[in-house]
Amino acid sequence: MKREKVSTAVIRRLPRYYRNLEELSQAGTVRISSKALSASMGITASQIRQDLSCFGEFGLQGYGYNVENLRREIGEILGVGRGHRAILLGAGNLGRALMENFRFDRCGFSLEAAFDTDPALIGTELAGVQVLDVAELETYLAAHGADVAVLTVPGPAAQALARRLAQAGVGGVWNFTNMELDVPGPTAVENVHFADSLLTLSYMISKG
Amino acid sequence: MKREKVSTAVIRRLPRYYRNLEELSQAGTVRISSKALSASMGITASQIRQDLSCFGEFGLQGYGYNVENLRREIGEILGVGRGHRAILLGAGNLGRALMENFRFDRCGFSLEAAFDTDPALIGTELAGVQVLDVAELETYLAAHGADVAVLTVPGPAAQALARRLAQAGVGGVWNFTNMELDVPGPTAVENVHFADSLLTLSYMISKG
Repeated sequence: MKREKVSTAVIRRLPRYYRNLEELSQAGTVRISSKALSASMGITASQIRQDLSCFGEFGLQGYGYNVENLRREIGEILGVGRGHRAILLGAGNLGRALMENFRFDRCGFSLEAAFDTDPALIGTELAGVQVLDVAELETYLAAHGADVAVLTVPGPAAQALARRLAQAGVGGVWNFTNMELDVPGPTAVENVHFADSLLTLSYMISKG
Repeated sequence: MKREKVSTAVIRRLPRYYRNLEELSQAGTVRISSKALSASMGITASQIRQDLSCFGEFGLQGYGYNVENLRREIGEILGVGRGHRAILLGAGNLGRALMENFRFDRCGFSLEAAFDTDPALIGTELAGVQVLDVAELETYLAAHGADVAVLTVPGPAAQALARRLAQAGVGGVWNFTNMELDVPGPTAVENVHFADSLLTLSYMISKG
């Protein structure tokens, strides 16, 4: 596998490949041409061939791609079978929406605990997940650890919490607050910026 | 303005430019070099110069970019300022999180109504927005229109609603359900795929 050559742009497209291949696999599709994959993904066939060539030879001339092999291979690159454990900070509307509706398991994650400051929530269970006091964050992490923290707290609380997470050795922060986080060390941050998405839609409807 | 040359990849980056320039503008920054913009955005300076060259000559050698001019110009391309009107379908946890916390106005949108099927919600107000019966969707749109619909309904309800929105002439669907929507005609769809974002984070923490 020639992973070191992979650009950020390709990495950003891999989850879409994974998602599409998973749907194809579930629908019982055994193989697919770059042309057919192109139609379902809105990426040109030549771009697809180029993207996937980074990872070695999955495709065969005249045969196309083996859906299940490609799905498994991309899943491995993305770290989907590594048993990643997630915690969630901030069980407000957005946090609850994720806890109740987002399929963490389909991304290879298990959501193991939630944290909040609201005494009415602490000690309860939401979507099968225990809500703990955020004051116990370090104690919890020392005992159980976590690979990723989902940050759905109000903006002003985000930075201090991100730092505590990094200090406690959490590998990644999935940041839903619209704050730019300054996080030390090897902790990765992935921002979900709703505004960027709405502005893209704004562009699409404004062109005409 | 040489808009026709602009690639999808550049369009996808414009909202980030806009957001960063807005923050710089609010902080009172008058001008900025591509190098300084690069540091705050995590995009190389040469990429920035290349991206912005698509839109004509905003930068001056040795001066950099005028923050406010560039912000306004990119905002115009993105359609911020056109008085876009949004409605929201599905006032569950995710819908409410957006209604209460997302700054639609900062993207140039006003959120004008919400729709739900829950009798307990219909007729109430959430975050200053009236919740109407989804059965009245067509009546409402015939009277008021809407440029964009935010789709935060349960997955199984998404496709039928998207079609109704398109038939009623809504220009864009901001799709938070994880369903691929088949929408006829000129209606644009922008998907928010949480899974793609989490899988990217998964990649980042799995590399080592």
